[in-house]
Amino acid sequence: MAASLFGSPNFTSVSHFNQTRFLLYSNKNSPPAIHRSLKSTPPRFAVIVCYSSSSSGGRRSRPEYIPNRIPDPHYVRIFDTTLRDGEQSPGATMTSKEKLDIARQLSKLGVDIIEAGFPAASKDDLDAVKIIAQEVGNAVDENGYVPVICGLARCNKRDIDAAWEAVKYAKRPRIHTFIATSEIHMKYKLRKTKGEVIETARSMVRYARSLGCVDVEFSPEDAGRSDREFLYQILGEVIKAGATTLNIPDTVGYTLPIEFGQLIADIKANTPGIENVIISTHCQNDLGLSTANTLAGAYAGARQVEVTVNGIGERAGNASLEEVVMALKCRGEQVLGGLYTGINTQHIVMSSKMVEEYSGLHVQPHKAIVGANAFAHESGIHQDGMLKHKNTYEIISPEDIGLYRANESGIVLGKLSGRHALRSRLLELGYDIDGKQLDDLFWRFKAVAEKKKTTTDDDLIALVSDVVFQPQVVWKLGDVQVTCGTLGLPMATVRLIDAEGEEHIACANGTGPVDSAYKAVDSIVQVPVTLLEYSLNAVTEGIDAIATTRVLIRGENNHTSTNASGETIHRTFSGTGAGMDIVVSSVRAYINALNKILGFNIQHEVMAKAGNSRVSS
Amino acid sequence: MAASLFGSPNFTSVSHFNQTRFLLYSNKNSPPAIHRSLKSTPPRFAVIVCYSSSSSGGRRSRPEYIPNRIPDPHYVRIFDTTLRDGEQSPGATMTSKEKLDIARQLSKLGVDIIEAGFPAASKDDLDAVKIIAQEVGNAVDENGYVPVICGLARCNKRDIDAAWEAVKYAKRPRIHTFIATSEIHMKYKLRKTKGEVIETARSMVRYARSLGCVDVEFSPEDAGRSDREFLYQILGEVIKAGATTLNIPDTVGYTLPIEFGQLIADIKANTPGIENVIISTHCQNDLGLSTANTLAGAYAGARQVEVTVNGIGERAGNASLEEVVMALKCRGEQVLGGLYTGINTQHIVMSSKMVEEYSGLHVQPHKAIVGANAFAHESGIHQDGMLKHKNTYEIISPEDIGLYRANESGIVLGKLSGRHALRSRLLELGYDIDGKQLDDLFWRFKAVAEKKKTTTDDDLIALVSDVVFQPQVVWKLGDVQVTCGTLGLPMATVRLIDAEGEEHIACANGTGPVDSAYKAVDSIVQVPVTLLEYSLNAVTEGIDAIATTRVLIRGENNHTSTNASGETIHRTFSGTGAGMDIVVSSVRAYINALNKILGFNIQHEVMAKAGNSRVSS
Repeated sequence: MAASLFGSPNFTSVSHFNQTRFLLYSNKNSPPAIHRSLKSTPPRFAVIVCYSSSSSGGRRSRPEYIPNRIPDPHYVRIFDTTLRDGEQSPGATMTSKEKLDIARQLSKLGVDIIEAGFPAASKDDLDAVKIIAQEVGNAVDENGYVPVICGLARCNKRDIDAAWEAVKYAKRPRIHTFIATSEIHMKYKLRKTKGEVIETARSMVRYARSLGCVDVEFSPEDAGRSDREFLYQILGEVIKAGATTLNIPDTVGYTLPIEFGQLIADIKANTPGIENVIISTHCQNDLGLSTANTLAGAYAGARQVEVTVNGIGERAGNASLEEVVMALKCRGEQVLGGLYTGINTQHIVMSSKMVEEYSGLHVQPHKAIVGANAFAHESGIHQDGMLKHKNTYEIISPEDIGLYRANESGIVLGKLSGRHALRSRLLELGYDIDGKQLDDLFWRFKAVAEKKKTTTDDDLIALVSDVVFQPQVVWKLGDVQVTCGTLGLPMATVRLIDAEGEEHIACANGTGPVDSAYKAVDSIVQVPVTLLEYSLNAVTEGIDAIATTRVLIRGENNHTSTNASGETIHRTFSGTGAGMDIVVSSVRAYINALNKILGFNIQHEVMAKAGNSRVSS
Repeated sequence: MAASLFGSPNFTSVSHFNQTRFLLYSNKNSPPAIHRSLKSTPPRFAVIVCYSSSSSGGRRSRPEYIPNRIPDPHYVRIFDTTLRDGEQSPGATMTSKEKLDIARQLSKLGVDIIEAGFPAASKDDLDAVKIIAQEVGNAVDENGYVPVICGLARCNKRDIDAAWEAVKYAKRPRIHTFIATSEIHMKYKLRKTKGEVIETARSMVRYARSLGCVDVEFSPEDAGRSDREFLYQILGEVIKAGATTLNIPDTVGYTLPIEFGQLIADIKANTPGIENVIISTHCQNDLGLSTANTLAGAYAGARQVEVTVNGIGERAGNASLEEVVMALKCRGEQVLGGLYTGINTQHIVMSSKMVEEYSGLHVQPHKAIVGANAFAHESGIHQDGMLKHKNTYEIISPEDIGLYRANESGIVLGKLSGRHALRSRLLELGYDIDGKQLDDLFWRFKAVAEKKKTTTDDDLIALVSDVVFQPQVVWKLGDVQVTCGTLGLPMATVRLIDAEGEEHIACANGTGPVDSAYKAVDSIVQVPVTLLEYSLNAVTEGIDAIATTRVLIRGENNHTSTNASGETIHRTFSGTGAGMDIVVSSVRAYINALNKILGFNIQHEVMAKAGNSRVSS
């Protein structure tokens, strides 16, 4: 059995591919051909095949982008809201840099629309959307593809102004505005009559168009519980006012596929002017039905689906991009009347890992498509079936979602490996790292390689996460030393270096080594925070593995932002650190989270300003 | 804001209920009444309401158990296969004691059928099923409820004998036998013709009945890809042979709800004799559609659904019990024609926690129903809606699934609290702990209370996990002491106590504190293992939290079991440990996993023996 290269299934979805030889089928050619033969028995892991009855075999081309119409009636637009709805998850607050990284990745993935944020929430949110609009929203590829950059806004001028201020720099800007339309929401949340709600929606869609935004999406919030006739009426009115996409959310996530499909079908059948706009779905996952509801919606006529990477989002999250996209890829042709998307599925794994990293929301091992076990088999019965023929059990190939492994490339990095070998391997893993980042990474890599005989891909990925996926540095770890155990008082000494290069040393004792070290850090950094979460995973197999620590902290002073309704949003910040010593990795993670909190800009009154500047323009 | 009592959303589904006041609605009375009013704003967390249009309001009674018929046509049987299909997940191997604990919990939950294992897999598997059959399978409650205990068997005498040997002690034993019926499986896996497959199925169902088992379930494996006419034919034949339940698996998890519902409807319409048996579903989750497929199956006529707690299982797992049950509870009446189950949903949270603990498979924070964030809200928009009226966003009450919190009972445990107070609080949390276990727990509790001002429920749960949910002790931790950091060579000294009470001391150095300590343990215990996974979570908020470590190891010698086809199953073992010092908790987890490996019995030839004993009886 080959040496284990990939270890902890808790870390990423690419684990558990050690000790395996794959029997891979590809759906890219027709008929499928065996890429590699099975050389050892029994394999622990899977062979997954994606059937496609498409006679053309390859990916179909993406139709031209026209806001309210899709030239190919089978094409389904993917609207990714990881940066807006996903970022609303507890603890998933991201910095502008992290959001930009994710937006770039979503663009590689080929999503049609990136909902980049809710600009009215805070200045930080507005700035993040604006940067994404400026950069990602203008990076047109050789096929003419560039994602639409969308900003969310409630149905009021201030929100719409903020959204436009943020997205207008994109080549294809979109404003997405929404208002509640269910009895319960209108009565208790909005305190408005049906007539008032219609008037607000109509006038605000018209206002968004008046700013020069030709792509306006409207959502009747809690559509699943709204009165049908009223829904048709308000949707008809916003179409007349200029909406180009109508998004139907199942906000409470409690409709069943049969109902949700019917809702979309009814809207399609009864809304005046619906033939001139795109219908969209937005399904929450409270009963675990978001993927099914989304597909039912598409089958019933929706041609945009709102999803998030890894299915993150409030409560039980949203429909997950990878499940919806792979279901359409594998079954769209046979069962769903030929529906397809423009997603480049080979970027799914990397997108999933990046979102896990930045949101701090790990996917469970048995998460469909991207979970660590998604391609793994344990039982003898299934192993037997797999051995005897390739596609007895599986439907998606690992390569389809961008799962490649180092033991296939044959490169093993060791302490004598140079910068060039490191950079090559990183490129194969999907990381394009150069300059100072590569230098920093190289020295960390050398330090690990000195201690371990060979470094694995997961080691490298952990180091990338520690060196590259990090906030701006305010404080840097110099050294840390601890003593602990059951016999004495745990104690720690830390040496930190500030932005000016000055050294600070402190020692402290606590209930354990991490507690002691964190107290020592606190006595230097002096930012009052509460540690909300702390977790640690070995990323590679074996006792001498690299450990990645993740912490989530909440600032106790003014690290909040205020939204336009005057409600306070308590921001929480995550930090990660990697190292072979769990105490060292823990301290790195804490310092990174503190750096993130120190770099977060607070501004309460951006809304008013943005609003005024727009009205006068 | 009140002091934080519950922290890490990674630990259990009950986290994130700190700093909240609930506005709870219950579906137990009609009309719902406010239990507690909202006293502070804004709450971070949710208020979830389960609608029920049932005029009776309360839970309906469970119909009498008759293998092949359900007196109430709306009742859906819950067949839990956490211990069989769930345990097949990588790393989820459980000991007999753990399986028995889970079976007891499933009985509290009120599942109709417990599939307790695959007795032909190994002697350990057979013994575990037998113990469950003897104990849980005979614990009849005041309403006459006792779960059916089911054992899986392939269509051969040896497997069926082993299954019967294990389940026959139960008051309601069931044998579940299966054979592949898809072209691809028959041709490449079984190498049998259609006629041979039918003959095997028919004769083995008849054989199972001949042993005295009146409750026989048959599954045509990979039914989703089987030829329809052949499926009707083989199902008709096994009904004639005496099968009482026909289970229709979607083994590769790639059918869509519309297809799976149609499959069940077609089987119901076309299989001769189908009116005399129960149709069952078994849906894998490869595309994230298992819950939807299960509901589609029930809607189309299935009256048994096979599920696992937390949706665990191979690859992306199975339909999750909690999602299916809560969907039926919330929507069965309104949308699914009045379908209901006998599940006591108040035990869902505890079942979920126990399965997480024993399987080592954590649920993601955004897992529907039982994820840590399932009831949490972050965004200002939703908070606003929540504040203004109770059920603008949610559909399930935390209490419905057994989520209660200590801050509601008002008891705070501190260092002066006695054994009685501890026991009372544990009972409220659902743990009935007494005798020596309570003693052990009490001393660990005192040690924690000495260091922390107050202990939280999550602290207690972590200690219960460490003290109660543990394998038989072979090795025990005496002391451990480490020194580490960036400045010197990490080193550790450990003192272990063996079963005879003798002390062993060793020291070692490694790449970090845990590596060093584990090497020292290895030099004493001398069991060659590979560490596959290592993870650590703080279970309570704040730097002085209790940390729980979980490790997964694989024995390098003979810790495998062989199934009846002669294939080797590589067993992996998990261990958990808790403590305020992460190094101490890491060492505890490792020793627990080693104890589990040392307690695992290996026997390769049980099948033959069991087979012979049955044939001659």
